[in-house]
Amino acid sequence: MKYSKIPLAQTLVSLCIAKGINHVVISPGSRNAPLTLSFSEQENIHAYSIVDERCAAFVALGMAQQLGKPVAVICTSGSAMLNYYPAIAEAYYSNIPVVVISADRPEYLIDVGDGQTIRQKHVFKNHINYEANLKQDITHKSTILAETHQLSAEMERELQQKIQAYNEKEINIALNTAVEKNGPVHINAPFDEPLYTMLDAPTVFPEVQPLVLDEHIEHDNIAKAAAIWSTSTRKMVLVGTLPPHTISKKYWEMLANDPSVIVFTETTSNLRDEKFFNKIDQIILPIEKNEEMLEEFQPEILITLGGMIVSKKIKAILRKRQPKHHWHIHENRVFDTFFCLEHFFQMNPNHFFELFFEHTTPIESSYKAFWNSVKKDREAKHDIYLNQIEFTDLKAFEAILGTLPSNIILHLGNSSTVRYAQLFEIDSSIELFCNRGTSGIDGSTSTAIGTAMVAQKQTVIITGDLSFFYDSNALWNNYIPKNFRIILVNNNGGGIFRILPGNKNTANFDTYFETIHPHTAKQLAEMYHFEYLTASDTASLQTVLKTFYDESEQPKLLEVFTPRTANDVTLIDYFKFFNEKK
Amino acid sequence: MKYSKIPLAQTLVSLCIAKGINHVVISPGSRNAPLTLSFSEQENIHAYSIVDERCAAFVALGMAQQLGKPVAVICTSGSAMLNYYPAIAEAYYSNIPVVVISADRPEYLIDVGDGQTIRQKHVFKNHINYEANLKQDITHKSTILAETHQLSAEMERELQQKIQAYNEKEINIALNTAVEKNGPVHINAPFDEPLYTMLDAPTVFPEVQPLVLDEHIEHDNIAKAAAIWSTSTRKMVLVGTLPPHTISKKYWEMLANDPSVIVFTETTSNLRDEKFFNKIDQIILPIEKNEEMLEEFQPEILITLGGMIVSKKIKAILRKRQPKHHWHIHENRVFDTFFCLEHFFQMNPNHFFELFFEHTTPIESSYKAFWNSVKKDREAKHDIYLNQIEFTDLKAFEAILGTLPSNIILHLGNSSTVRYAQLFEIDSSIELFCNRGTSGIDGSTSTAIGTAMVAQKQTVIITGDLSFFYDSNALWNNYIPKNFRIILVNNNGGGIFRILPGNKNTANFDTYFETIHPHTAKQLAEMYHFEYLTASDTASLQTVLKTFYDESEQPKLLEVFTPRTANDVTLIDYFKFFNEKK
Repeated sequence: MKYSKIPLAQTLVSLCIAKGINHVVISPGSRNAPLTLSFSEQENIHAYSIVDERCAAFVALGMAQQLGKPVAVICTSGSAMLNYYPAIAEAYYSNIPVVVISADRPEYLIDVGDGQTIRQKHVFKNHINYEANLKQDITHKSTILAETHQLSAEMERELQQKIQAYNEKEINIALNTAVEKNGPVHINAPFDEPLYTMLDAPTVFPEVQPLVLDEHIEHDNIAKAAAIWSTSTRKMVLVGTLPPHTISKKYWEMLANDPSVIVFTETTSNLRDEKFFNKIDQIILPIEKNEEMLEEFQPEILITLGGMIVSKKIKAILRKRQPKHHWHIHENRVFDTFFCLEHFFQMNPNHFFELFFEHTTPIESSYKAFWNSVKKDREAKHDIYLNQIEFTDLKAFEAILGTLPSNIILHLGNSSTVRYAQLFEIDSSIELFCNRGTSGIDGSTSTAIGTAMVAQKQTVIITGDLSFFYDSNALWNNYIPKNFRIILVNNNGGGIFRILPGNKNTANFDTYFETIHPHTAKQLAEMYHFEYLTASDTASLQTVLKTFYDESEQPKLLEVFTPRTANDVTLIDYFKFFNEKK
Repeated sequence: MKYSKIPLAQTLVSLCIAKGINHVVISPGSRNAPLTLSFSEQENIHAYSIVDERCAAFVALGMAQQLGKPVAVICTSGSAMLNYYPAIAEAYYSNIPVVVISADRPEYLIDVGDGQTIRQKHVFKNHINYEANLKQDITHKSTILAETHQLSAEMERELQQKIQAYNEKEINIALNTAVEKNGPVHINAPFDEPLYTMLDAPTVFPEVQPLVLDEHIEHDNIAKAAAIWSTSTRKMVLVGTLPPHTISKKYWEMLANDPSVIVFTETTSNLRDEKFFNKIDQIILPIEKNEEMLEEFQPEILITLGGMIVSKKIKAILRKRQPKHHWHIHENRVFDTFFCLEHFFQMNPNHFFELFFEHTTPIESSYKAFWNSVKKDREAKHDIYLNQIEFTDLKAFEAILGTLPSNIILHLGNSSTVRYAQLFEIDSSIELFCNRGTSGIDGSTSTAIGTAMVAQKQTVIITGDLSFFYDSNALWNNYIPKNFRIILVNNNGGGIFRILPGNKNTANFDTYFETIHPHTAKQLAEMYHFEYLTASDTASLQTVLKTFYDESEQPKLLEVFTPRTANDVTLIDYFKFFNEKK
């Protein structure tokens, strides 16, 4: 193994490894050479090279999400790091520990007209859990510094010791914060030339500071909450984005079997049980103007788990008809989504339920039974409606989601895709992810590929055309496993805008909202060596899907063409259909 | 014409138009609907729809650079705006007035778990000339706000008047700053639903605040500088990036004809005169270790004009051998590039020279004559060397740059491209641009396309393969003129890294530095309807170039394949050759 001659590079690499980081995504550059050379020389490190930093950061995000531990992205100085920002914001709001390491010029070369130089400190300030702005090593000094400071050898040694101590401390804090706060951190590392000198043995041996993970357990408040819970007949648990296997089966079943509790689970919650209400919009969209039903719906107590809620409607309804008590349980983050949060239990939800259920007692209620009957009715009507319509997005999603193999990882694009997926049953063995932190269309494919690169299972992404073409550079990646699958539902534009209130089918609408386009993925598939398949009706789609997930020599891309101007009508009518008499 | 019902949207559109903005680049979204609908309905506005915000912002940059006035980019809330950042940083360091308008959620919907929502205020803080963080109209209130505030009708009217006044003031300052500081500004505009309501007539009539452009003329300091200038026999003028036609012929010729002055002009300076030293690296790279010649080179006075200097070597040499006096002349910005800046004359360079030359007197000197003889020698050797080598990047650039049509606009990619271009004569009628603010590879093609979209002349970009593939979404653009031309020099990776000190031809080097790849632009050309041509030797290249710029039904892309592992050797030998005895 080789080590950069620069102490700061050695320190950074050594501490990353000590903290269990063994995946790093590197984009090419010269200023980051000390890190690139050091990381790629380490035996315990899987290093990946990805040119487009926007993709690189989303790949790291997908990896970190999958591995459940920090992954580093490393880039050169200048505008390179700015391309990380979309993924950083996503990581911030989705609680994913991405460690951004940006190489920088030394301080004295910033804002003096050097190339590839910007003000890197604080760039991510709004959306980062910690910023370690490291100091340049003095022993590795430039001519300019030496001339300016005129330090004696001893003063220089002392100063370098201080710098080393500072850098060790800051890197330790940053890497610990990534885990403790479960989110992105930024380490900015200035290097002066020469950048390429390597040694056979390290010259610094940084100290590792331990993690501080402490839970804030409020026994009294948990007991108080349990007492309220025990007397209420109308309780709702709403589960947003959650990593698979977060909630213990034991507590999940206690909730599922309680007649006074309805559990609404987002598709992205990875909690799929037939006793839950897994298709939120299917239940509530038809009642959004029915005051009587809304009253029936309003819970007294709302417990929320997980991250972002996809359904706009449930947010709107619960904001208008607020529960008397809203408690949020999460290890890191709370949002007052319904403007009535009473208490935030900052703790692991299993630990919360363990303590909480010690104090609760059962109560009779018809709350769940009532909504169960609604659910059954919706499911029946869903089937009737789906059987009577032509091939559109809705039919395509039915075919795709209904034939997914078990035990895969499914990534969903924003935003039509994840919303359509909300309307269908998804096999409970499937682990599901979607970039709902910022709900951007900017990096879904890259994220899914990052997942696939480290996953033990087959990874599939379903995405719309705007998302797919936006992130087309995702395919410029040498590490895509052969069993990776892309299903691209191409409706020639941003079909979601056709559902929104604008005046559709005008020239302005087509251009600036739906942004219609004639492109297909055929050429990109050829360029990046994907097997390319197409379908444009139910029969051809079903045929292709029969063998689509089978072992193959190349990754595959299936492009499903749906009729642009019929998709919205079918979906709008779908929701209307639930209110029609049988 | 239609107007958004939202006063803030009306105010923003009205002030943009009043300030002469008539080009806006819009990315699709719902939150920005009030702006999209308003701008696209205005007769005086050219609106363009571009999906990928990274490209959209670079397109706006290319337009604003070409038009010499502000161009707006408009996006929806959330991570969309983060994709603008690379272009914003480029605009900041290149002095290009890009006006970023981000639609935002109302304050009360930020950090409560809503989709497509981030902390948009201050995101660009490090690289922006002004931030107008506007206030949401109260007349256009949400249920939540109304419930919280319980305002009387009169209080509401008063509050709305204050908000309107604040927004008008802030928008005026932002738009004026874009011109006064000649750089990017950010306007963040929160809108609440409903977003799509339009009116037939405006309801607000914002006041336009005039620009304040004042020059800081230091008559005494100019006279003092002129006195020093008049007694010095070794004066250098170094011109970085400058828009075409910036310096009046009169002053340019006074400098060109002065025997005590050598004028070094970057390729990006758009100052091309046979009496100048247009090929900086060709002159100085061969002397970088020759102390005698370096002494001969060191000026007493250095005047710098324009923006960034491309040549690393001249920066390195002048930092070591600093002039006694360094004066920088620029309307906006100064960098102490050589750590010896004595004075910054913040003014228009023509105005400076007008006042300056009133006070100067001629002096005899052999300074220019000496370097002229070096220049002649270099030029002769350049020709000899080019005639004896095989086809590589260097030969490709010779053929391409030597056959460019007159009167075109030429955009150069980073970083090999602009460096190769420094070694050749370029027709003086050509207007040349390159993103040297941050020297990124992230948006060159988009910038060139933005230029082409508003230029009266044919626009040509020469780019390397990493730059080209990085910005491949640039081609996803419905406004590319038929006469637009791309010349892609594809050496299968970042050839520039082969010139840098790393250990080339190792697996690690190929992967993480040069990042070699097998891709060509063939499929992208097909996908985006470019006529696709190739060349891989001098003869085929010359043949293609004969008709390449002719009128055509589609834009064209010429891909020139050069031998990856020979390019660096040829270039390194080129610089060695100047030191060889004839």
